[in-house]
Amino acid sequence: MTIETISTHRAHGGTQGVYSHSSAITGTPMTFSVFVPDHAPGARLPVLWYLSGLTCTHANVTEKGEYRAACARHGVIFVAPDTSPRGEDVPDAADEYDFGQGAGFYVDATQDPWAKNYRMRSYLERELPEVIGTQFPADMARQSITGHSMGGHGALTIGLRNPDRFRSISAFAPIVAPGEVPWGEKALGRYLGEDRAAWREYDAVALIEDRFAQEGARHPHLLIDQGAADDFLVEQLRTHRLAEACQAASIDATIRLQAGYDHSYYFISTFMAEHVEWHARWLG
Amino acid sequence: MTIETISTHRAHGGTQGVYSHSSAITGTPMTFSVFVPDHAPGARLPVLWYLSGLTCTHANVTEKGEYRAACARHGVIFVAPDTSPRGEDVPDAADEYDFGQGAGFYVDATQDPWAKNYRMRSYLERELPEVIGTQFPADMARQSITGHSMGGHGALTIGLRNPDRFRSISAFAPIVAPGEVPWGEKALGRYLGEDRAAWREYDAVALIEDRFAQEGARHPHLLIDQGAADDFLVEQLRTHRLAEACQAASIDATIRLQAGYDHSYYFISTFMAEHVEWHARWLG
Repeated sequence: MTIETISTHRAHGGTQGVYSHSSAITGTPMTFSVFVPDHAPGARLPVLWYLSGLTCTHANVTEKGEYRAACARHGVIFVAPDTSPRGEDVPDAADEYDFGQGAGFYVDATQDPWAKNYRMRSYLERELPEVIGTQFPADMARQSITGHSMGGHGALTIGLRNPDRFRSISAFAPIVAPGEVPWGEKALGRYLGEDRAAWREYDAVALIEDRFAQEGARHPHLLIDQGAADDFLVEQLRTHRLAEACQAASIDATIRLQAGYDHSYYFISTFMAEHVEWHARWLG
Repeated sequence: MTIETISTHRAHGGTQGVYSHSSAITGTPMTFSVFVPDHAPGARLPVLWYLSGLTCTHANVTEKGEYRAACARHGVIFVAPDTSPRGEDVPDAADEYDFGQGAGFYVDATQDPWAKNYRMRSYLERELPEVIGTQFPADMARQSITGHSMGGHGALTIGLRNPDRFRSISAFAPIVAPGEVPWGEKALGRYLGEDRAAWREYDAVALIEDRFAQEGARHPHLLIDQGAADDFLVEQLRTHRLAEACQAASIDATIRLQAGYDHSYYFISTFMAEHVEWHARWLG
């Protein structure tokens, strides 16, 4: 396993790097960014994953996320993967911002022509963690996850499916119930096919409902911030559905509606330091 | 005097706006960004100006500068102007990143074809302050100034020429002696002509030398951060020349070399909060 260093910059008393590696799972090169705070020789630091939203790469949060000061203060490594496989040979829907490249929706696609490359679930659940654990001074026994919008959906679903791997889960303006909203119905339908039962592993509200019904599974540390002036709130995000599911499952989630804030990185960057600090509490 | 609101976003407990107005001085529309922290009705807040570097617009620092949390904490308005006049009718040197549009060097040009539009000195010393003072809840009796690279040169020269207007001056990786380095010799030569005496009002080291010789003028609050790993340090920035000039004039400046940091916004954003806090001390 080798990775290529694309760039490194000293920032906030640590190193902000951008890296690329050849992914066996997506069959493409994959780019990601990692911030590593300065640390004692031999020390291993906990990891906070950040999954990005539609149209984004690693670069958006790396430039605009304002996470480095807080990560340096709390000694947390911050990893920002891409949102899909990319490349000329990767099937795309070039005119659609909400499907194809830049819109992987954190699923393992089962439908042609997407199934070959669009395997962001396995990439993030299995392959990239191994890269991070072997190539960086990361303590993989201490991980948490967050994300924005489509990436908030990714953080919630990956986190809820792997409660033993992640000590805490947060999200900024997540798509909480993709099976019920236009963005999700389009993406899940084309990546996974029309059998909606297959969608439920990729839907935070459905996961909570199903898991609760079976075994009462839940996550004890869940934090959501949602802008009240977010133009996507009513049609695509529907935060109240997560609140209802958590209440029905007796999950003690913190779900906050932030007056005046929209869907942009102006919103994310405002609450980022607080999320990092909150995760750091569970990452010990 | 009217301004057009291009966008506003709630961020860090304040409002980040982008605005445009028709400048009588440059003869063009000019775009700028302003962050206004929440404040009591009728209150007027001090102003920190930030002048950007080569190729930048207001957008770079607005997206990557990480100033909003500190400005909100200290109740400081943050203004980021553009770096030159722009437009199809504005003379340009399209193949040169360091001259023409995006590279106004904060001078009033005297040479054709630049003299008509390239008047960033007067724009920033006279016109834009009036816009800020009348259109925003700004206390224009309390102003400070900072900037990066070419904008650090702008902050130093505008600040040193107007010590009564600015309570404190800081800069990130400034061009301290443009009359002695390739970027400055090119720009000042073409905007101002070959008579180097005319350049000295636009050269921080020369201003300190000349003013000191005449009347001992100086600024009591001067803070510089410079990355030690900045690729432009030796040829273009030459921070040691400012240190020498300050020492010769008995100016008690704080000039810090930051190990490992380069010329990018990863450097600027690291020290931004500290600069805002330092200015806030003098802004009261």
